[in-house]
Amino acid sequence: MVDILHRVGIKSSVAEVYSALTTTEGLAAWWTGNVRGDGGDLGDVLEFRFGAGGFNMKVRELVPGKRVSWEVVDGPQEWVGTHVHFDLDQAEEYAVVLFKHEGWREPVEFMHHCSTKWAVFLMSLKSLVETGKGAPEPYDVKIDNWN
Amino acid sequence: MVDILHRVGIKSSVAEVYSALTTTEGLAAWWTGNVRGDGGDLGDVLEFRFGAGGFNMKVRELVPGKRVSWEVVDGPQEWVGTHVHFDLDQAEEYAVVLFKHEGWREPVEFMHHCSTKWAVFLMSLKSLVETGKGAPEPYDVKIDNWN
Repeated sequence: MVDILHRVGIKSSVAEVYSALTTTEGLAAWWTGNVRGDGGDLGDVLEFRFGAGGFNMKVRELVPGKRVSWEVVDGPQEWVGTHVHFDLDQAEEYAVVLFKHEGWREPVEFMHHCSTKWAVFLMSLKSLVETGKGAPEPYDVKIDNWN
Repeated sequence: MVDILHRVGIKSSVAEVYSALTTTEGLAAWWTGNVRGDGGDLGDVLEFRFGAGGFNMKVRELVPGKRVSWEVVDGPQEWVGTHVHFDLDQAEEYAVVLFKHEGWREPVEFMHHCSTKWAVFLMSLKSLVETGKGAPEPYDVKIDNWN
């Protein structure tokens, strides 16, 4: 098992970041505008779409201001069964986000792509919370010949 | 052992990307302006500096248009002994870079930071080769409260 790890620091409160991770409005503004469902309760399923494909996430942990965890329940086969964790911590004026996309079975080329793409979307989350403007799909930064 | 993985695609030839990875001029224009040494021969040591700290890399593999590998021989203790690989492949109009920073002993918080930071610098490499303008230190994008 291999994991994608990232860390961003956002000049804000953890409460604001938590909101951007647990509301459809927040998620639509940094990850993909094509999101359905509700991320505010355990067991909720969020449907994120990107062009033709996408991911369905079941909300597995919610600790306000501290932690959001999802399980991937549908999507590309490499993603199904993996988990996505956002751990939050207030470090003075920064809300620090430790990100982990955990449980990839193999370090395939698609995992390399997703690692870079997660970094770009986490910078979009940072921009959204700090400035009010993120860069969600379809306005996201393209990183390679896949997306 | 845990690894940082990334993938970027650059609209260019692999030869141009290879040059940006093996010349001091190229490296200075996407990673850090404060670089000394020469990266064009096996065994060369490149000294990259960022503010107070930095990394010394020994060039371990050079396959023109295909692969560049460095061993970290000095720097933060978490980095020493790790290896950095850039594998290049031409996919039609894109030079695809598969990046691996291999051999971290533990998935420490600093590794999360470095993973995101590598993504940002690889996007700087992409920008340099595609547009002639990268975002090397000290003009790089700050990702958190550390840098």
